[in-house]
Amino acid sequence: MNRIYVVGIGPGEYEKMTIQAAKVLESCDVIVGYTVYVDLVKEHFAGKEFLTTPMKQEVKRCEMAFEEAMKGKTVAMICSGDAGVYGMAGLMLEIGTRYPECQVEVVAGVTAALGGAAVLGAPLIHDFALISLSDLLTPWEKIEKRLLCAAEADFVICLYNPSSRKRHDYLQKACDLMLTYKAPETVCGLVSNIGREGELMQLMTLEELRDMQVDMFTTVFVGNSQTMVVDGRMVTPRGYKMGEQA
Amino acid sequence: MNRIYVVGIGPGEYEKMTIQAAKVLESCDVIVGYTVYVDLVKEHFAGKEFLTTPMKQEVKRCEMAFEEAMKGKTVAMICSGDAGVYGMAGLMLEIGTRYPECQVEVVAGVTAALGGAAVLGAPLIHDFALISLSDLLTPWEKIEKRLLCAAEADFVICLYNPSSRKRHDYLQKACDLMLTYKAPETVCGLVSNIGREGELMQLMTLEELRDMQVDMFTTVFVGNSQTMVVDGRMVTPRGYKMGEQA
Repeated sequence: MNRIYVVGIGPGEYEKMTIQAAKVLESCDVIVGYTVYVDLVKEHFAGKEFLTTPMKQEVKRCEMAFEEAMKGKTVAMICSGDAGVYGMAGLMLEIGTRYPECQVEVVAGVTAALGGAAVLGAPLIHDFALISLSDLLTPWEKIEKRLLCAAEADFVICLYNPSSRKRHDYLQKACDLMLTYKAPETVCGLVSNIGREGELMQLMTLEELRDMQVDMFTTVFVGNSQTMVVDGRMVTPRGYKMGEQA
Repeated sequence: MNRIYVVGIGPGEYEKMTIQAAKVLESCDVIVGYTVYVDLVKEHFAGKEFLTTPMKQEVKRCEMAFEEAMKGKTVAMICSGDAGVYGMAGLMLEIGTRYPECQVEVVAGVTAALGGAAVLGAPLIHDFALISLSDLLTPWEKIEKRLLCAAEADFVICLYNPSSRKRHDYLQKACDLMLTYKAPETVCGLVSNIGREGELMQLMTLEELRDMQVDMFTTVFVGNSQTMVVDGRMVTPRGYKMGEQA
């Protein structure tokens, strides 16, 4: 059985990878991935064979990984964040049915929601929903429905892919939908370049978020009705009573 | 400034911790935590001072951490999974306002949703909602509303704290609510003891999940309308078209 690992490398910085992820990458012959992610890990895994494909070539990238494994090599397909959250784990398992000699193992990592939350403080302490604003592979109506329902149920909401060149007004649209149920003064936060050079965090209200321009390297956090600012950090209380035993 | 770290140690197994988490624990003088979690890391960090409090003593545990830091020690408060998902990061930041000499830094980790997803396959590839069924600190009506809204919007749903001695029928109640919008044949998965001895995964339909008894070490995954079983794994497709470039 040829083993292929699908490895989440975390937000970017080497140390934010799990020990298991680093060990798997050290043990393998070939590291396959999107060009940007391969560049992030390259210096830490010298002597490996690196294979890359640009964006939107995900199917080809997976097939390339399986072809290498079929040659008897140990292969790791890397993804930023977690391989299982908007990552390649699903597609690898699907395409893997064509390569029954290969066994796919998923190695979890810290996705941007968790990495970004740590920078902001503790916005995700309670129930939350993760929604991608990219409508490349999802009908916009479905995204709208999710934004509305998540806001109605007072979830903390974390938005991935909040913007791109073609979708410069999607964050504004999303805020308008969430404002149907969430108060304009709801505490929100942005984190850019999590665990990479130029990491930046910013707090604001939902009303202010609506008018912000963000780039595709930004993760957006919209609080629930209890989320507050504590010493400049974004904190969602879990409900513990202070001063008594909870 | 005295530094206190709030560290997510991942699902349990040492290697599922981030490199950063391990480095922080190695560098600190005192490791504070819930007894069970301290026992999980103890053997890997010999020579440290360990302080524990049992469950439901969370406020006291935080105060203990700050008191140690005030003595000039470097302190790490550990949580299982991620410190920022139903973890101690929020309470530490809140209580930290009473200790302005201390600076709280959150170190993210792999929460059970991500760790369990990797075991099952790739259930969380697309938009998902995380809901705790524990009503110790949250009114049950709020939990009900979230289950209904998340199901209505066709989120993949991951359930934490699906059961306990006092709440043996909560998972059944939750399934009934989700069945308002989700089909009985929706693909579901359970993972117990993620990254620990006795790790176990199981796939079933939502209808079957309704009649299962699970314990508090189990994380439950309920698929969206597209989630499927691929070679015995639970996979939510992202929408990539097979055989063409997506």
